[in-house]
Amino acid sequence: MTRTQALDELVTANRILAREGVVDSFGHVSIRHPDRPDRYVLSRARAPECIEVDDLMEFSCDGTPIDAAGRKPYAERFIHGAVYHARPEVRAVVHHHSPSVIPFSVTNATLSPVMHMCAGIGTRVPTWDSHATFGDTNLLVTNMEMATELAAALGDRPVILMRGHGCVVAGLSLRETIFNSIYLQLNADLQLKASGLGDITFLSEGEVAAVLRTRGAFTFERAWEFWCRRAGRPYDARAMDGPLAGA
Amino acid sequence: MTRTQALDELVTANRILAREGVVDSFGHVSIRHPDRPDRYVLSRARAPECIEVDDLMEFSCDGTPIDAAGRKPYAERFIHGAVYHARPEVRAVVHHHSPSVIPFSVTNATLSPVMHMCAGIGTRVPTWDSHATFGDTNLLVTNMEMATELAAALGDRPVILMRGHGCVVAGLSLRETIFNSIYLQLNADLQLKASGLGDITFLSEGEVAAVLRTRGAFTFERAWEFWCRRAGRPYDARAMDGPLAGA
Amino acid sequence: MTRTQALDELVTANRILAREGVVDSFGHVSIRHPDRPDRYVLSRARAPECIEVDDLMEFSCDGTPIDAAGRKPYAERFIHGAVYHARPEVRAVVHHHSPSVIPFSVTNATLSPVMHMCAGIGTRVPTWDSHATFGDTNLLVTNMEMATELAAALGDRPVILMRGHGCVVAGLSLRETIFNSIYLQLNADLQLKASGLGDITFLSEGEVAAVLRTRGAFTFERAWEFWCRRAGRPYDARAMDGPLAGA
Amino acid sequence: MTRTQALDELVTANRILAREGVVDSFGHVSIRHPDRPDRYVLSRARAPECIEVDDLMEFSCDGTPIDAAGRKPYAERFIHGAVYHARPEVRAVVHHHSPSVIPFSVTNATLSPVMHMCAGIGTRVPTWDSHATFGDTNLLVTNMEMATELAAALGDRPVILMRGHGCVVAGLSLRETIFNSIYLQLNADLQLKASGLGDITFLSEGEVAAVLRTRGAFTFERAWEFWCRRAGRPYDARAMDGPLAGA
Repeated sequence: MTRTQALDELVTANRILAREGVVDSFGHVSIRHPDRPDRYVLSRARAPECIEVDDLMEFSCDGTPIDAAGRKPYAERFIHGAVYHARPEVRAVVHHHSPSVIPFSVTNATLSPVMHMCAGIGTRVPTWDSHATFGDTNLLVTNMEMATELAAALGDRPVILMRGHGCVVAGLSLRETIFNSIYLQLNADLQLKASGLGDITFLSEGEVAAVLRTRGAFTFERAWEFWCRRAGRPYDARAMDGPLAGA
Repeated sequence: MTRTQALDELVTANRILAREGVVDSFGHVSIRHPDRPDRYVLSRARAPECIEVDDLMEFSCDGTPIDAAGRKPYAERFIHGAVYHARPEVRAVVHHHSPSVIPFSVTNATLSPVMHMCAGIGTRVPTWDSHATFGDTNLLVTNMEMATELAAALGDRPVILMRGHGCVVAGLSLRETIFNSIYLQLNADLQLKASGLGDITFLSEGEVAAVLRTRGAFTFERAWEFWCRRAGRPYDARAMDGPLAGA
Repeated sequence: MTRTQALDELVTANRILAREGVVDSFGHVSIRHPDRPDRYVLSRARAPECIEVDDLMEFSCDGTPIDAAGRKPYAERFIHGAVYHARPEVRAVVHHHSPSVIPFSVTNATLSPVMHMCAGIGTRVPTWDSHATFGDTNLLVTNMEMATELAAALGDRPVILMRGHGCVVAGLSLRETIFNSIYLQLNADLQLKASGLGDITFLSEGEVAAVLRTRGAFTFERAWEFWCRRAGRPYDARAMDGPLAGA
Repeated sequence: MTRTQALDELVTANRILAREGVVDSFGHVSIRHPDRPDRYVLSRARAPECIEVDDLMEFSCDGTPIDAAGRKPYAERFIHGAVYHARPEVRAVVHHHSPSVIPFSVTNATLSPVMHMCAGIGTRVPTWDSHATFGDTNLLVTNMEMATELAAALGDRPVILMRGHGCVVAGLSLRETIFNSIYLQLNADLQLKASGLGDITFLSEGEVAAVLRTRGAFTFERAWEFWCRRAGRPYDARAMDGPLAGA
């Protein structure tokens, strides 16, 4: 993948999250820099639905812009750097405030997969509460100290909630991370509905492990084509017909 | 109906299910082959919203593609063949993951018709749990052994839920099966809302039987025209003005 | 208003109900014939979203088409005639299956206005259950006997629910009846949400009476303009600037 | 900002509230007159989605139109004048009937921020009940006496609910007021969902204060750009690249 393709896909990822209602004016998605693993790429501070390639900036893992060129960065960019620093295998990070997910961050109800497509969120998603260490703040993760604690709480999981705020999703590819962001939202919707009907049978740990073990890139690709169409973004059909098709 | 018309309608059925939110990137719909009852027609592995006529493939009932031509089939195509094998009268099968339906698959609440338009789902829709026989799997029905057990659990019913996964809908025509798929989703929405208000008066068995006894092809046709319009698919107006109009 | 205008408005009413989600492929709206009070005008059997002027048919109050010209009427047209017969002041009737309203028809929860805009539905909306007199049927009101009993249960009210089926809304003008149909749906949404939060303070009978006493045609006109725009239907701006503006 | 720009922005504010589902045919938004602080600008009585610049009228704080030119004003314009009179710092007022908010006005559940973006609604949003002083009315605030009592109940808060009716939102700028109107709706959605899951941890008073202390104009600007795009309204990109970008 060329650098141009990578940036185009990051724009697409922003538009997809907006189209699917995972983000509104806030929330952001980054990729680890394709050539410089100590950097990440993230838009300037702008609503995801509006982002263009020229909005994309490079940052070092401590959140310093490489060449800001007058562009204002997100105040919470530190979340991304802290996760990339703590998790060398992670290639993409999303921070979002999905209205389906927030209710689970402010109650004792614990998100856990209720269907196979949502297994990627991991069993018993934890919640990080900034208040425990940092007290009364505006809840924004605006420095490396807070971001490092959040990344430590995330550990090697794919998802962590943030009390009264949102969540972080980290994954091995941009497609996987967008996929898990959207299915996290769906799982929250499903679990909320199911909790009104009675006790819930969640996926077993063995089932979650089996889904993750057998899921291939093709699953993410199929969803990516669909979401591109809904977001009005071009999709390179060769990806579906190429080597992935045999995966 | 010519073969071309049948394939066009199958594409339309995919687009309708996507437009109505019954399927997202996943879920699929098949028809029994119009001329070869031992075969069925199903898209290659692709999101229903994106499917074109060239994506449609033929399969024998054991899931073997007749002429794959490099196209990757759905991993769960076996569901379709097992139902066509067990139910000679069935002409169309849908497998979907409607977010309205899933909550009923993971709780003890039992879906049953709360309004006349939903009578086609049958009273007290059962749930099949793959875990009972197959233990910790990725929940996908990826072979004939699982599919055959699922089809046996379906029996002669129109619908069965799959725990933590979705459902199967089988019918005597493509229009009827799409109709029941969409009204299954509606019934789940209605029943979830009603369960928050108090005890529910479901349709009696006699009422369900009366609906099924008196429902004609015209009911499905009227809905089909509406759904075609919403999905941006052509509709042949002659069907509404023709013999069906007197039905 | 000319006959052409009246028919155009009836088409618009159909499109509005579809756009606002009050009807799907089913449900219908009629007007009393502008010149022949013993007749009403109702579409042939077709989804409201698809209806054109040429679909509109005239019926006598017993449901007999005046000049069918090969068009198939709604099986439930009898509802309209029975209400026009019983209520000489009524000028428009809607029968719909709003998914917000149905849950109240199958539980003991009683719809009543929770906000001023919904006062037109009347306090404590009753439910008619076809099973009480007619036993196990397909729930459709397909003859004058059933329709007459339903109209009697409606009495002089603006709305009645039908158990496991839908509702009837009757009003003094097409705009008022569409208005009350849509705000009936909204009230059901509001009441469902509020019932999850605790005991509800409904509008008092005095408040409902005060709303009805002070509501003018301009209220309906303002909403009509908005709904026309959403439904993609032309709106005659002169109505807003004309005598009504001084109402 | 020129007078033309201010009026264009007020039209945009109306369209945004409509697009985001905060208002339907009813509800209205005003600004204090840019040059005459004893006046405010508000549309003639029309659905917010339909409003054009020519619909905007000037009023003195007692609700008298300056130059009606045959245009019919909103019956409830008095709300705006009473708030501008009581609160010299307020520059914009919204009155709306969001279907998410109403349920909190008719139950004992108290709206309070569950996430940081909603801190602007203030802790423990109160409800004003017109019935306490004025008895059985149509609930409309159609004179200065009612409006003055409502404004007194609002006090120095940003939001007050109106039982069985809607709410008032007042702010220091049009963007802030629209922002808080939309996030009030979101908070109501979140709180309703969360209340179905168990006891809720609301933002602490210290957290709310911290959000308000650190929130800059850029936050409102980022959201405004997004909402303009969704509403199909032009957005002046220079605002994002200008001095605000350094805020």
